[in-house]
Amino acid sequence: MNLLDSIRIIMVRTSDTGNIGAAARAMKTMGLSELYLVSPDKPLDGKAFARASGAVDVLDKATICQSFEEAIADCHQVYGTSSRSRSIPWPHVELSEAAPQIAQQAGEDQKIAIVFGREEHGLTNQELALCTYHMSIEANPDYPVMNVSAALQVVSYALRVKFVEQPRIESHWDNPLANLGDIERLYEHFEKVLIQNGFMKADDPRQTMTRIRRLYNRTQLDVQELNLLRGILAMAEKSDNNANS
Amino acid sequence: MNLLDSIRIIMVRTSDTGNIGAAARAMKTMGLSELYLVSPDKPLDGKAFARASGAVDVLDKATICQSFEEAIADCHQVYGTSSRSRSIPWPHVELSEAAPQIAQQAGEDQKIAIVFGREEHGLTNQELALCTYHMSIEANPDYPVMNVSAALQVVSYALRVKFVEQPRIESHWDNPLANLGDIERLYEHFEKVLIQNGFMKADDPRQTMTRIRRLYNRTQLDVQELNLLRGILAMAEKSDNNANS
Repeated sequence: MNLLDSIRIIMVRTSDTGNIGAAARAMKTMGLSELYLVSPDKPLDGKAFARASGAVDVLDKATICQSFEEAIADCHQVYGTSSRSRSIPWPHVELSEAAPQIAQQAGEDQKIAIVFGREEHGLTNQELALCTYHMSIEANPDYPVMNVSAALQVVSYALRVKFVEQPRIESHWDNPLANLGDIERLYEHFEKVLIQNGFMKADDPRQTMTRIRRLYNRTQLDVQELNLLRGILAMAEKSDNNANS
Repeated sequence: MNLLDSIRIIMVRTSDTGNIGAAARAMKTMGLSELYLVSPDKPLDGKAFARASGAVDVLDKATICQSFEEAIADCHQVYGTSSRSRSIPWPHVELSEAAPQIAQQAGEDQKIAIVFGREEHGLTNQELALCTYHMSIEANPDYPVMNVSAALQVVSYALRVKFVEQPRIESHWDNPLANLGDIERLYEHFEKVLIQNGFMKADDPRQTMTRIRRLYNRTQLDVQELNLLRGILAMAEKSDNNANS
């Protein structure tokens, strides 16, 4: 398998189908081929295929998802592109440092998503909170305004250059990493237990869950650690049920 | 002065003004600002300015030239983008090796042109022979088909990343480098003398001048060496005139 096949490009709620076509072309020029579209505003049309030029195959096998969570469920890393600073700081990398790091993660057989948001507004805070990293491109601070396909072209190039040099690495870890779908179920479990035991109010959760997400998204849980945490939560749930009964 | 100001982007005979606008935007997102247009097919129009978006200033101060030679006359290095192989091999660099090299040349106060050819056909062999280096982007060999503005976006990004790290360097050389306008006059002198003394036929020059260009374009002549060569050619010219009289 080509290491570049470890990369999934995800475009969230893109409104211009021409941009999706141009993105497919940008991907193919650098050897990327896996495109996921989360709730695109319109179905792929002639404009998309015209802009895709010789990369129609990338569009043809693009996967359409209804939710962002669904698009990343089987991934181990999610890099959300963002030029915005957020209220809660998140692990953040610039593209030139991210590229060798992503190449190494791919070399360890991880599945990595790179996410591009809406043309006008990028990714929402809620979407950014689902990412393991936020990534920005080292653009001109006075005018960092790249079209989504231009940004994708730059990211794809930076990845290709590093991937070409990247050897496949024997994992040094004893357990496989948990994927983000399983980790999402951990968060649901956390939320349920925290509300149930009164630590967090369902109607005023503040940033508690965001902070928990940030903690475990950067921890890179393996499946055994995940099961351990699920077990602890189940125990807390049960004891709380007993206390209430 | 910003080191990125050492870079001149030259677009040769671009046919779509929209591509020129998109190129201006790509440049500005990475902090480049000097754009030269060699014989564009059409004058800059509304389409160009619309695609330039917030980079209208780059278009406004773009320089229009009638010839490629004029556009590079005051440069020390000319990187011609090309995916083609030529009959005579030329000094060739891939973008990822070129970027730190260009940053270093800029740090030594050299003026560097990066040249993009026609949308359909790229640069001609004649234009490529005026370059000091040929440069290609490490694209997917099965589909390296980047639009000119996409290629420019990638090149500008790769340069920006390296320029940010590049210190200004005290030159270790005793004479300033000759610029390509002066070197062009050296070639004209060579051609005249070689034809005059019968070494080369005016109506069948073969690749002699191309080989001479390749030799001195990669030699990085300083002004004193250039004057020395001009002096030798003048001497050859004179002795030949005497022999014929």
